[in-house]
Amino acid sequence: MRAENWRAEILCVGTELLLGDIVNTNARDISDALRGLGIGVYWHTVVGDNPARLRSAVAVARERANLIITTGGLGPTYDDLTKDIICAAFGVPLHMDEGEAEKIRAYYAAAGREMPESNLRQAMLPEGCTVFSNGNGTAPGCAFVSGECTVILLPGPPREMRLMLETGVLPYLRAQTSETLISRDIRIFGMGESAVEARLHEYMESLTNPTLAPYAGTAEVRLRVTARAGDAETARAMTEPVIARVRETLPEEIIYAVDEPSLEAVCLRLLKEKGKTFAAAESCTGGLIAKRITDLPGASAVFKGGVVSYTNEVKHRVLGVPAETLEKYGAVSRETAAAMAKGVRALCGADYAVSVTGCAGPDSDERGTPVGLGYVGIAGAGFTFVREIQMGGDRGWGRVYAASYAFDLLRRALTGILY
Amino acid sequence: MRAENWRAEILCVGTELLLGDIVNTNARDISDALRGLGIGVYWHTVVGDNPARLRSAVAVARERANLIITTGGLGPTYDDLTKDIICAAFGVPLHMDEGEAEKIRAYYAAAGREMPESNLRQAMLPEGCTVFSNGNGTAPGCAFVSGECTVILLPGPPREMRLMLETGVLPYLRAQTSETLISRDIRIFGMGESAVEARLHEYMESLTNPTLAPYAGTAEVRLRVTARAGDAETARAMTEPVIARVRETLPEEIIYAVDEPSLEAVCLRLLKEKGKTFAAAESCTGGLIAKRITDLPGASAVFKGGVVSYTNEVKHRVLGVPAETLEKYGAVSRETAAAMAKGVRALCGADYAVSVTGCAGPDSDERGTPVGLGYVGIAGAGFTFVREIQMGGDRGWGRVYAASYAFDLLRRALTGILY
Repeated sequence: MRAENWRAEILCVGTELLLGDIVNTNARDISDALRGLGIGVYWHTVVGDNPARLRSAVAVARERANLIITTGGLGPTYDDLTKDIICAAFGVPLHMDEGEAEKIRAYYAAAGREMPESNLRQAMLPEGCTVFSNGNGTAPGCAFVSGECTVILLPGPPREMRLMLETGVLPYLRAQTSETLISRDIRIFGMGESAVEARLHEYMESLTNPTLAPYAGTAEVRLRVTARAGDAETARAMTEPVIARVRETLPEEIIYAVDEPSLEAVCLRLLKEKGKTFAAAESCTGGLIAKRITDLPGASAVFKGGVVSYTNEVKHRVLGVPAETLEKYGAVSRETAAAMAKGVRALCGADYAVSVTGCAGPDSDERGTPVGLGYVGIAGAGFTFVREIQMGGDRGWGRVYAASYAFDLLRRALTGILY
Repeated sequence: MRAENWRAEILCVGTELLLGDIVNTNARDISDALRGLGIGVYWHTVVGDNPARLRSAVAVARERANLIITTGGLGPTYDDLTKDIICAAFGVPLHMDEGEAEKIRAYYAAAGREMPESNLRQAMLPEGCTVFSNGNGTAPGCAFVSGECTVILLPGPPREMRLMLETGVLPYLRAQTSETLISRDIRIFGMGESAVEARLHEYMESLTNPTLAPYAGTAEVRLRVTARAGDAETARAMTEPVIARVRETLPEEIIYAVDEPSLEAVCLRLLKEKGKTFAAAESCTGGLIAKRITDLPGASAVFKGGVVSYTNEVKHRVLGVPAETLEKYGAVSRETAAAMAKGVRALCGADYAVSVTGCAGPDSDERGTPVGLGYVGIAGAGFTFVREIQMGGDRGWGRVYAASYAFDLLRRALTGILY
């Protein structure tokens, strides 16, 4: 089938969504993934764990979509109804999948826990379906075709859903779709979305295939280039001139990556390439820099460690920031940021070290430092460099921005554009 | 109208939602707010900026809901269609609201910008509606009643929507609703969802008002008690016996809070109450403990700081873990966890210290430590305590679990149930 002939509806089942407990990231993630295949999503629907309403939602979806992807309700508990109701609606019988049943038993055995018998309900699957194993849990997903309609059932927990989407659903759909859409991500740190858009507005308007569109991330901007073609290679080639044009139009140093997921991922790659290590001294970011680098597998090759110096005492005793510096300039100062970076570099024996000190709010400190004022430092062999930053009044955003700023300084130091 | 007689559908209009560019926080925020009024939300629907599909979504919503709340499509551009289509569907004429038109003109005048004439489309409102002014933008929202159905139109940008929801929509609905719903959250760490449910299944089934339902969080479980009554006080009182029954049924020490948002929030409160401080030494959690505590305003009163010791060198040099311990038992060992906790406690001068060392994967370390094996330690005046944990094979989940485990040990130490 050509990608443009699919009409997808995403049907999320879960009372917790209707109660407002959680945001529906599954609908977003599936939509984003289907866009990558050029498949149009026309509807999102959310219903609770209620048989009658789920039945009616399925009836409505069948009328208007030929690809229905559900999330939720595949678990072992009594309110996990999705499979029963969908299969009844499509007249597809359920049967016990022995392979999946065995996996569930093995999962409990490995964890040394007794398996509640109800868990085997998860291995009841539609006859003749394609099974998607669950790499992060016990409930398998599946796909079946009924008449014109393809139905895909996925688990609700985002961690399980995302892995299954990536490893099971996308290959399944790709095999049945004859057109490909390729998206490239240009990642920008150091210029706001509206400033980026102002410089590229006319060019963006002039494009149809590929297209170019801006998205605001947290404290950064993404530009997405999307091309549609018969095969991936052609589509990819079509994106290249657009990326080149963006590089010409914007200041070179603010484009920190194309198709790499984050500043920390770029730093990890650069450090590995150069065989260098780094360390971090964090005050207001409180471990966020360390957390972000160690979120990435392989971080141990480049990250020696860090100190979260949330008090002056720790800044002095652990990092060796001189008492006079803290006394004279305060914890939130250019001088303290520099001493923190130098201190943690020596302490951890790293090639580079970054530091952040600032007032993330909600209140200013005892010296009356304005909320949002911060300093980001970097130290390397023979140099120390500090930048003053404004983190704004929002604690969460400010911390992300300051941590990103530190990674960006490290990236710039590693690529020789620190100025 | 009694709250239980409302049947709400949230209809979000915006192609950007279907493309997966953004998560639908509006649906979550409105659901959460309506729950506070005891109004049941039974459906979320998302459609793009497409007249035919929007028309059909409105037709479906009218059939099943008597309260329809839309977001998006109220702006000045050609694809802002919501008002036109909804008003046509309900047979309500639009007219120019002179007060709102004046505000839009004033907004542009104040910004010193020329107003595109199309902007006045935003002031076209359904005849006889209740107007909700937009405190964060130019497009007003509104509510009108048609037969049995109340329709509320809200702008799409979350910042505009949230303010209008708070200041306009909730007072409007509260004035028309005679019942309240109260939810209480029982938070559990140390038992899986299905085990919790197995113990409470019959009791949960027997309840109608209040109700009791389990939700899986990341590495923890929540039980929600929800009661419906004429006023908040009565509803709250109705939840108390249910909470008491849950406390009797489950092991007391696994219930870490009722109505507190997280383990770290409980630790922050307990430390403040007791005037105590803590520090953290983190290996595989890589700063996540520090990050989670410093996400909370007020953390500086109780958190001295932490060390992220991602290498043996840092464990030895900074934390003072003896070289022989690392040599003999390895970095991932009971002995190293104990030495890390003691070391960071002394270094930071804290009353308590927690430590985590483990193999988060994806690969095992050079000693062949199994992926997922970890040790969590706690040190206080005169005691050190270490627990072996299994973090599973998923790096992200394992790190959250290990960090939560450390906070839970701290909570247990602070409440005298460490054993």
